[in-house]
Amino acid sequence: MKVQLQYLVALSLLLAAAEALVQDFCVADLSLPPTPSGYPCKKTVTEKDFAFSGLAAAGNTTNIISAAVTPAFDGQFPGVNGLGISIARLDLAPGGVIPLHTHPGGSEIIVVIEGTIFAGFISSFANTVYLKTLNKGDIMVFPQGLLHFQFNAGKGAALAFVSFSTQNPGLQITDYALFKNDLPTELVAKTTFLDVAQIKKLKGVLGGTN
Amino acid sequence: MKVQLQYLVALSLLLAAAEALVQDFCVADLSLPPTPSGYPCKKTVTEKDFAFSGLAAAGNTTNIISAAVTPAFDGQFPGVNGLGISIARLDLAPGGVIPLHTHPGGSEIIVVIEGTIFAGFISSFANTVYLKTLNKGDIMVFPQGLLHFQFNAGKGAALAFVSFSTQNPGLQITDYALFKNDLPTELVAKTTFLDVAQIKKLKGVLGGTN
Amino acid sequence: MKVQLQYLVALSLLLAAAEALVQDFCVADLSLPPTPSGYPCKKTVTEKDFAFSGLAAAGNTTNIISAAVTPAFDGQFPGVNGLGISIARLDLAPGGVIPLHTHPGGSEIIVVIEGTIFAGFISSFANTVYLKTLNKGDIMVFPQGLLHFQFNAGKGAALAFVSFSTQNPGLQITDYALFKNDLPTELVAKTTFLDVAQIKKLKGVLGGTN
Amino acid sequence: MKVQLQYLVALSLLLAAAEALVQDFCVADLSLPPTPSGYPCKKTVTEKDFAFSGLAAAGNTTNIISAAVTPAFDGQFPGVNGLGISIARLDLAPGGVIPLHTHPGGSEIIVVIEGTIFAGFISSFANTVYLKTLNKGDIMVFPQGLLHFQFNAGKGAALAFVSFSTQNPGLQITDYALFKNDLPTELVAKTTFLDVAQIKKLKGVLGGTN
Amino acid sequence: MKVQLQYLVALSLLLAAAEALVQDFCVADLSLPPTPSGYPCKKTVTEKDFAFSGLAAAGNTTNIISAAVTPAFDGQFPGVNGLGISIARLDLAPGGVIPLHTHPGGSEIIVVIEGTIFAGFISSFANTVYLKTLNKGDIMVFPQGLLHFQFNAGKGAALAFVSFSTQNPGLQITDYALFKNDLPTELVAKTTFLDVAQIKKLKGVLGGTN
Amino acid sequence: MKVQLQYLVALSLLLAAAEALVQDFCVADLSLPPTPSGYPCKKTVTEKDFAFSGLAAAGNTTNIISAAVTPAFDGQFPGVNGLGISIARLDLAPGGVIPLHTHPGGSEIIVVIEGTIFAGFISSFANTVYLKTLNKGDIMVFPQGLLHFQFNAGKGAALAFVSFSTQNPGLQITDYALFKNDLPTELVAKTTFLDVAQIKKLKGVLGGTN
Repeated sequence: MKVQLQYLVALSLLLAAAEALVQDFCVADLSLPPTPSGYPCKKTVTEKDFAFSGLAAAGNTTNIISAAVTPAFDGQFPGVNGLGISIARLDLAPGGVIPLHTHPGGSEIIVVIEGTIFAGFISSFANTVYLKTLNKGDIMVFPQGLLHFQFNAGKGAALAFVSFSTQNPGLQITDYALFKNDLPTELVAKTTFLDVAQIKKLKGVLGGTN
Repeated sequence: MKVQLQYLVALSLLLAAAEALVQDFCVADLSLPPTPSGYPCKKTVTEKDFAFSGLAAAGNTTNIISAAVTPAFDGQFPGVNGLGISIARLDLAPGGVIPLHTHPGGSEIIVVIEGTIFAGFISSFANTVYLKTLNKGDIMVFPQGLLHFQFNAGKGAALAFVSFSTQNPGLQITDYALFKNDLPTELVAKTTFLDVAQIKKLKGVLGGTN
Repeated sequence: MKVQLQYLVALSLLLAAAEALVQDFCVADLSLPPTPSGYPCKKTVTEKDFAFSGLAAAGNTTNIISAAVTPAFDGQFPGVNGLGISIARLDLAPGGVIPLHTHPGGSEIIVVIEGTIFAGFISSFANTVYLKTLNKGDIMVFPQGLLHFQFNAGKGAALAFVSFSTQNPGLQITDYALFKNDLPTELVAKTTFLDVAQIKKLKGVLGGTN
Repeated sequence: MKVQLQYLVALSLLLAAAEALVQDFCVADLSLPPTPSGYPCKKTVTEKDFAFSGLAAAGNTTNIISAAVTPAFDGQFPGVNGLGISIARLDLAPGGVIPLHTHPGGSEIIVVIEGTIFAGFISSFANTVYLKTLNKGDIMVFPQGLLHFQFNAGKGAALAFVSFSTQNPGLQITDYALFKNDLPTELVAKTTFLDVAQIKKLKGVLGGTN
Repeated sequence: MKVQLQYLVALSLLLAAAEALVQDFCVADLSLPPTPSGYPCKKTVTEKDFAFSGLAAAGNTTNIISAAVTPAFDGQFPGVNGLGISIARLDLAPGGVIPLHTHPGGSEIIVVIEGTIFAGFISSFANTVYLKTLNKGDIMVFPQGLLHFQFNAGKGAALAFVSFSTQNPGLQITDYALFKNDLPTELVAKTTFLDVAQIKKLKGVLGGTN
Repeated sequence: MKVQLQYLVALSLLLAAAEALVQDFCVADLSLPPTPSGYPCKKTVTEKDFAFSGLAAAGNTTNIISAAVTPAFDGQFPGVNGLGISIARLDLAPGGVIPLHTHPGGSEIIVVIEGTIFAGFISSFANTVYLKTLNKGDIMVFPQGLLHFQFNAGKGAALAFVSFSTQNPGLQITDYALFKNDLPTELVAKTTFLDVAQIKKLKGVLGGTN
């Protein structure tokens, strides 16, 4: 057997021409323009490209929503480029809330690490609401593109990780889409039936104009 | 050549065993449970399965939004099952509006057939707004999952067709998701920062409870 | 509530690092080489990238087929890049015909806007033919890659829009593939069993050589 | 180490609940209706489901085209269901030809095993023709949905295998689509510009009607 | 505005026919045979279908590898069916190890919740090794199908969650594939170059035969 | 009819603007960085881009495994880029073996051209083994990512072609992944339970370090 193994190397050499071109992964080269399938691949990669410490520290929740989202999407963690997966960290101080939002690009699973989180999503068209109180270790899935929310339903801080079925799920917070931009007040009123006073109030708070 | 052609039939016979199993299309059998890729295929199909007259008549716009959406998704038009495409008809009487909504499952192209439509979408996260006035023959694309709206910006009736990059795009109207169901008022308030009075007002109108 | 909203801005700042990298859409940069998933994304976009007026005017049908196809694929309408959808306009003067053709890259839905169109497709292998007369507002679906045709079956002009399940469906007109190029006559004869005289006649008309 | 290994079994037991549900493959149950993603999976499989001897024997080429196609698609070889690949055998006696055809569902690679094959394809729209003489061991790729052909360019028999990027590529032979069915002669003429006499001649030979 | 809203209900009614058929999600009906795209959809769902508490409790690590994997794939958590995502819990007692393995069906992200985990993967063909020590909050990605491992590199227990880019990633532990089945010893030797004595030793421990 | 055809050219001109942008295929430009969907497309292509003679000659099997793999993946055969298919040639001298390996990126079909090949694969998790003796003309399918092997079970040389459901399936030979790199011996031992002496022996033969 010893002799036999000695020459396994030969197969290696025969295949060597192909070696440089095999594409097991495609770490994003963020300096190049992306394509519909993601970023072009970096030429030289190291183990650092596949790991990320940016979710180790708690996000700063000393804000009014008492919450922070820390993403590890392709823009922050180029190793996920082309792999159809990404993750983010959720910190919710007591009373904290992630307001109603969607991820246009993918589905989400939340796993609660600490505390108690109340979460829910609303199905498209039928408007059926699915609500759950999630304790430590519980998981919940939010189907792609549907409105959902999470808030801290406990007394202490809450921590969760949320995974996505894509390298970049996007994030559209309904309040921001309506009130934190230059979308004219009358357009918001016309397309949401909210009162003008309500719109102006929220625009004022969020820094929206028009 | 005549003799040569005479026997082309032979190839046909040789291939005949495979014939019954070739799958050019998959007209939905709506009586069976769907799968993530769509409905199981109907056994026997005719030309009627591939055409649909349900969009020929204008929708009834004698309602407060002065608008009607008539879909030809897989549920109405089983011929699109598995083909990655569907279509709907939009009728907008003067003043009519399709309120802010998303299609979680696909992108949309609108083509204006009659009248003038003002349309827009809001990009995820950055909250950038893209607005356009569309006249007869103009088209606009709304990327998957993003909030968008259309309303009649002219004096007469407006008609448009909207195509989707999937057999069933879904439709989540923000107002309905928030106010036309049993989602508790305090949850809406907590996750949207709308005033309780505003929420109760719209719930009342739309028939929402809690 | 006012105070609470006042600070929603904080979440915005926390997420700001990710903002530039979110990819809701990918308007084609036609100056760069495409990839199998489409063109690289343009850096700066405006609302003009998402709308297109090129289908508003009727195509010129003063030709022998009395027909015109005006596409809004990724090459003409870069906003559809990566979104899995595109559209084209069909103008058919009286007697006009879109000759037998396929779209190798996607399925198609036609919606008739004006006039009467007779359309059909032929299924792969079984050679079953599906034929329909389509009036104003009628739709029909043509599964990906199958031979199909449309012609004006009425007395006046006909107008239709055709949507596709891809940003670039391709278009292979059988007559052109056979007769409007340098494919040698004997090759056409050998692979189609058409008579040489017939081939030479059509090559002559269409400008084919060999 | 011995002790350590002794108990590896434990992990096995812990995971056992999931075992029955893991889905490495999905051998087609041809007795159930297919879906857009393929057939439902057979419950019990053996090694026989993953191998197939139906391509071992030469197809019968004693017909006028002196050719035979023997497919191993999902219908014949249920093991490929859901795996995105299939294969077929091509036998070409001297003078044999596979007439102009498309595979609507996938791309193809041919590898010549015996003899000399002349092959070509025509690109969509631009009508550019790509032609090659292929000898033993040569390969050629035919992109999805494009018209292509193969014929025996040598003096002896030719043998080739063709692989496809899908479990069921479909097969639309142009001659059959036009002449071997009940598509009315005037429709063929109107949509191909072929002479009526030519159409009737080929319909007669292939058994077409109308 | 009140009157206007009062009749929003009308749109709802117009769209009601489509309502039952909209497919935002597809909770698996595990009693039906799966398809290549996943299980058929359950008819009636509740909020319980979208949440799961099976990962809340630590797996039993009182085994020789001092480790436990608790999956929430489609088989355990039918809510992920069709959504392209799943998750599992990893418990590693001191000295615990998840032996070298692959997931044929998807990519993986690990997030360390407690303790220190040493992890690595080996790239296809080039055999390059990527190794990292991961502390609390660190993440690492393992590209689809590549050999990888994790072990507890700390003194206390380690806990991690691993997410996958598919509803059912599969799990092929190399040791099990080689030694815990009836694969004949001589076949293992011939295809791995391991010594027969080594193979027999591991087969003995893992309960393999032949 | 002659006049009618004469002007078909007109349609061609009307469509000419789109012509340069139609994307029937995407021959790889190997000088540019790849993306997750493959390489950017070459600008100018000829028929040579779609054919390849590199599999015509037998690989050199004068090595200890008496075997050679000659790939025609995107790196060697840029014409398959974006088409979801590739192929390779297997030469197995008497006694030759392709050691246990996986293709992380795609499924495989083998067709035996000459000789007798014994092949098998191991299913994920359940460790079920599927083994077959394949004679000339027999085919077998190996599902994506699963461990499999092939060896010459006859007295003469064996030749086979293997097709893949992707342009670049990757190739991870278990022996190489474990022993032909700098993966530390103690890590291999810890994650495979192989004896240190066995690991050192194989590392020595294959040129691995540490």
